[in-house]
Amino acid sequence: MAQRNPEGMDLTGPSDLIDPTERTGPAARTGPVGPDAVARALQAQATDFLRALRLHRESSTDSGASVEAARTLRWSARRIGGCLHTFRPLVDREWADALRPELAWLAATLGREHDCSARLTRLIGALHRLSGTAAFPPDQALRGAAVPAPARRDSAQRGPGTLHVGAAKAGALLERQITLARTRAHSAALQALGSGRFHAVADQVALLASDVPLARHGTGTEALGAAAADRLTDAVGLLPLCRAGHPYNAEALAHGLAADPAPDAQDAPWNQVRLLLRLHRYAREILDGSEFPLDVRLFGASQALDRHRDAAEAATAAASAARTPRIAPATAYALGILHADQRHEVEAARFAFQRLWVRT
Amino acid sequence: MAQRNPEGMDLTGPSDLIDPTERTGPAARTGPVGPDAVARALQAQATDFLRALRLHRESSTDSGASVEAARTLRWSARRIGGCLHTFRPLVDREWADALRPELAWLAATLGREHDCSARLTRLIGALHRLSGTAAFPPDQALRGAAVPAPARRDSAQRGPGTLHVGAAKAGALLERQITLARTRAHSAALQALGSGRFHAVADQVALLASDVPLARHGTGTEALGAAAADRLTDAVGLLPLCRAGHPYNAEALAHGLAADPAPDAQDAPWNQVRLLLRLHRYAREILDGSEFPLDVRLFGASQALDRHRDAAEAATAAASAARTPRIAPATAYALGILHADQRHEVEAARFAFQRLWVRT
Repeated sequence: MAQRNPEGMDLTGPSDLIDPTERTGPAARTGPVGPDAVARALQAQATDFLRALRLHRESSTDSGASVEAARTLRWSARRIGGCLHTFRPLVDREWADALRPELAWLAATLGREHDCSARLTRLIGALHRLSGTAAFPPDQALRGAAVPAPARRDSAQRGPGTLHVGAAKAGALLERQITLARTRAHSAALQALGSGRFHAVADQVALLASDVPLARHGTGTEALGAAAADRLTDAVGLLPLCRAGHPYNAEALAHGLAADPAPDAQDAPWNQVRLLLRLHRYAREILDGSEFPLDVRLFGASQALDRHRDAAEAATAAASAARTPRIAPATAYALGILHADQRHEVEAARFAFQRLWVRT
Repeated sequence: MAQRNPEGMDLTGPSDLIDPTERTGPAARTGPVGPDAVARALQAQATDFLRALRLHRESSTDSGASVEAARTLRWSARRIGGCLHTFRPLVDREWADALRPELAWLAATLGREHDCSARLTRLIGALHRLSGTAAFPPDQALRGAAVPAPARRDSAQRGPGTLHVGAAKAGALLERQITLARTRAHSAALQALGSGRFHAVADQVALLASDVPLARHGTGTEALGAAAADRLTDAVGLLPLCRAGHPYNAEALAHGLAADPAPDAQDAPWNQVRLLLRLHRYAREILDGSEFPLDVRLFGASQALDRHRDAAEAATAAASAARTPRIAPATAYALGILHADQRHEVEAARFAFQRLWVRT
């Protein structure tokens, strides 16, 4: 499900898309930063987009290269959209306001297939862990681990075949449902990449690569970056951080059995912070230049919130599978345990975020 | 289910039985402690036992007083048994070894009804919390709270009536199953109190109240207390405390969906420490005398392990209810969530214990 910030900019993306080595756009600098830095960043991102597009067209027979190209397209679209959002007063407003929702549509459409795969991997991995059929080194199994444990992926790739009765049926049900969604997402992405709507976006990005349409009277660039930081701080201020910092507070699973289980209500402010944190990180990369090291705590906080989103959506998928008609009680029981497990992972992610945030 | 320490002494009791104001037996002292202190403690406990027995016989028409009397009988039986266990070389061995299993039998038999009530209260309370139909002040709902939240009991006393479909059915099923077990436990306790076996125990305790059969050559009393402390330290050394101190380590629910779900294997060393910690506390009360304040951290650690045991047994009850034939998938789903919730409470209790222990 796509998350939206208050201005309707869809900035959703899966958790493993944040790469600490990814390019920060403009070259290093030391003096005050002006609109030209933003323009250079937009041009660099647009160039990435166009290169990925060319790669995608050339790689129709190489599925690995094609997936890689689609991922870069998505990243670039998201970064350009984020940049246009934060530095909106610097660019031609009408043009930017028309392009941003199109970039959001593209990033969301291209991301869905990957999201489905990641969700299935996470759920099957959790079923294996809960069934004692996954052999993790203890440290990797810790939820606090900064990096998704590769062993989890291995066990997930084994599929639900080695699981026991209830867990096996739950795994097979989830695999069926999520694989169907993934196949649909794949077709939708292919269709989107061949559509006139996509070609129009690509034309606009090509324009951006050659000449950024700047506004006549640009506001201070640094001030816009500071405003993005302020929006983040304000949103974090609305989070129940005190409670989140208290381990095992049992908050995330509250209402797990309510008549209308709406975890969205408690998850929404966290998702909002996730989006604003990403915008802030993108802005800092442009404003600080690449000579500044990436703030590892901000990066870790971003990862914690990605984990929050992934676990919340996995929990929703388990709950939704449990509503499938005519399933066996053992299947439903396994899905209940799986749902609770993922909601606890949501709570663990909040705890991890709180720990990282109070240190920044 | 009764927990046994390696010497077969049943020392099980529900979590709310530890009362910081309960009498510590002997009067305050300052010099070295000898066998007479142990004898005085045993006599005081035996006197408590006999007083409770008289009260129980006189209160056949007052169920509140009868419950209270049965509870004191159980406490005294447990304390006498614990004292005989720790200070075994000080008393007539043959006599003590014959009495201890009888006291254990009595304490276990008298405790089962209360355990059933507490388990049902805990499970129905959790269902209400998970259904959003319990109104806790946020602080009380925190699992780290030192004292069982009274609000939980209130919501539990409302019964499963106000719950929603799956949770309501799960609550009704648990209520049916656990109430049946409680009724059986009640009958068994009544039967036990009227049995010749009980009268034989009472006779031995009456002997103890008047004259403790001491051994001819008693070992050092302080050394026996130190040995109890050492046994505790050794048992704690076998716990995975490092992992337990890492919040959200997901250990307690591991194997929650295994073919043979045997959480006993991972719970056993914690239950062992629970029993040894209780023996250590009882011994310290005798050796330190009442002028020493009760060590609040030891008391808190004891409470955490009681919570560990209670949550583990509640989780087992939920899993067992889910194996009832012909239940609806929604019921099974709710029981799965409930089981996972209680296993996370087990994990939370381990975390709380670790925090308290590293500070002692």
